[in-house]
Amino acid sequence: MNRHALLIGGAGFIGSQLAKILLSLGYKVTIVDNFSRGKLEYLEEYKSSTELKVLNFDIAENSECEKAFIEAKENADITEVWHMAANSDIPAGVLNPAIDLKDTFLTTFEVLKVMKKFNVKVINFASSSAIYGDFGDTMIHESIGPLLPISNYGAMKLASEAQISAAAEDFLDRANIFRFPNVVGVPATHGVILDFINKLLFNKNELQVLGDGTQQKAYLHVSDLINAMLLISNRQISDKVEIVNIGPYDKGVTVKWIAEQVILRVNPSAKIVFGDGNKGWVGDVPKFNYSTEKLRSFGWSPNLGSEDAVKKAIDQIALQLGV
Amino acid sequence: MNRHALLIGGAGFIGSQLAKILLSLGYKVTIVDNFSRGKLEYLEEYKSSTELKVLNFDIAENSECEKAFIEAKENADITEVWHMAANSDIPAGVLNPAIDLKDTFLTTFEVLKVMKKFNVKVINFASSSAIYGDFGDTMIHESIGPLLPISNYGAMKLASEAQISAAAEDFLDRANIFRFPNVVGVPATHGVILDFINKLLFNKNELQVLGDGTQQKAYLHVSDLINAMLLISNRQISDKVEIVNIGPYDKGVTVKWIAEQVILRVNPSAKIVFGDGNKGWVGDVPKFNYSTEKLRSFGWSPNLGSEDAVKKAIDQIALQLGV
Repeated sequence: MNRHALLIGGAGFIGSQLAKILLSLGYKVTIVDNFSRGKLEYLEEYKSSTELKVLNFDIAENSECEKAFIEAKENADITEVWHMAANSDIPAGVLNPAIDLKDTFLTTFEVLKVMKKFNVKVINFASSSAIYGDFGDTMIHESIGPLLPISNYGAMKLASEAQISAAAEDFLDRANIFRFPNVVGVPATHGVILDFINKLLFNKNELQVLGDGTQQKAYLHVSDLINAMLLISNRQISDKVEIVNIGPYDKGVTVKWIAEQVILRVNPSAKIVFGDGNKGWVGDVPKFNYSTEKLRSFGWSPNLGSEDAVKKAIDQIALQLGV
Repeated sequence: MNRHALLIGGAGFIGSQLAKILLSLGYKVTIVDNFSRGKLEYLEEYKSSTELKVLNFDIAENSECEKAFIEAKENADITEVWHMAANSDIPAGVLNPAIDLKDTFLTTFEVLKVMKKFNVKVINFASSSAIYGDFGDTMIHESIGPLLPISNYGAMKLASEAQISAAAEDFLDRANIFRFPNVVGVPATHGVILDFINKLLFNKNELQVLGDGTQQKAYLHVSDLINAMLLISNRQISDKVEIVNIGPYDKGVTVKWIAEQVILRVNPSAKIVFGDGNKGWVGDVPKFNYSTEKLRSFGWSPNLGSEDAVKKAIDQIALQLGV
């Protein structure tokens, strides 16, 4: 059977890049997006493709979710769902938990309900390292616990994983749960690099950084992320649920280093002004030792480590913003 | 300051027993219940107490949740929330995930939102061993993973834990998360013993058992459960979030053994008829090695092991049903 992916959040940062790769691999792709951050222009090069269909629905609403599946099925039977939609503004979700409830969790909840109704049994889900919370210096592998997310975003990603797990017992054949690291690249819709460049476009002489800049995190380029997801989703496994940390094989870079790279690219004479504390915002995990041992055991390795991924993304995002 | 507990689900099985203990310890108690399964008669002996107030609200609805807090505060400042409300019909939640979304998760979500608004910073939460899923023969301690619940009930309990964890980062001073085992006792509102006795009251000569009866689980009497919760909630700890498995110190009893004890009490000549498979229903975990090492380290021990707890509960529930 030809593969037909229903790609939720497919007009966003990661989703739009994934759409292109899936199309290039010969999939039919139906994108569903509420276009809160996603943009049609990200899919420009495929706009006349007969293999791509784009639908504007808010999947967190049951009736819209059903309509999306019905319209997607007109194209061809849906062989798999890729669920990449979520609130991506973590601080906003901390201020108002209703945002992550709806955009990060209820999207998953409704998708699963409608998948069951329409007999679609494979889901690929963008989860997050944010489900773990703050483990300090401890290596974070997939079987660590207890899981104590410190943001509503992380909480609702964990809630989504839990609901997927229950659905696997009930009706799914296969659920791939990808725990994403910080992902960088274009088209950037959010994130530290975009924020920094935008700040410099507003005030070219000063870059204000939230927190003291010592937060260290691993960054993966979106091209490597997609590569890893495809590998994981196509592996034969005996379990129904596969949970994998995705990330580069290094310990990451500090926010200070990123700020320095950004001014180097945008305005080398700008001054960096740091805030207090080692957290950028409530819900920000300051330090993170992310184990990618499981992913390594699959034979995967990233093309770019954190430093190169960030440098490449800075250049790409600067170009995106016309700098 | 005098302690005033807002006890959600306080007219139910565990909640009503907890209410009595808290009152006997000198707390003011305001019960909030939607009376879906809870009953006022469970609180009969305290109905004229000036220290007890009972409110009929559905806490999963934001406006009702707010009203509950406002009316409770008229009594005295709320020092702590005890959240014991949830869907308790696991198979019903498997058939319709909306039940656990609302009664098991949105209750927690709304309570946390309103706690923040009214500056109430201590929550005691009835979580469940169902958050773990099926670990086979592995000992299930609090830091095991990955958490793969196999029922929507377990999924929404895990979602609740996650949301509490994020709230602890945001505004809570203390969150005690009790992972309950199977709890037995009176007033029984659901559960295997009540089901078995009710079946025998309908057909006294035959007891039909879901599954082959080999499912083995640990059972704790409600009196021991409350005892353990009070101990945990009053311990001084350095973290904001305390997660503890509560259970007896034995490996439990089989469903077959329970069925035998029930007919012994109700009608010794009844015939037990078993079904197929080692699961009673979708979402039922057949075997469970529940580690209570952490709870033991606090110096707690149950008065009744699984066998004695079940025997006592059978007798109590039979009396409750007039047998």
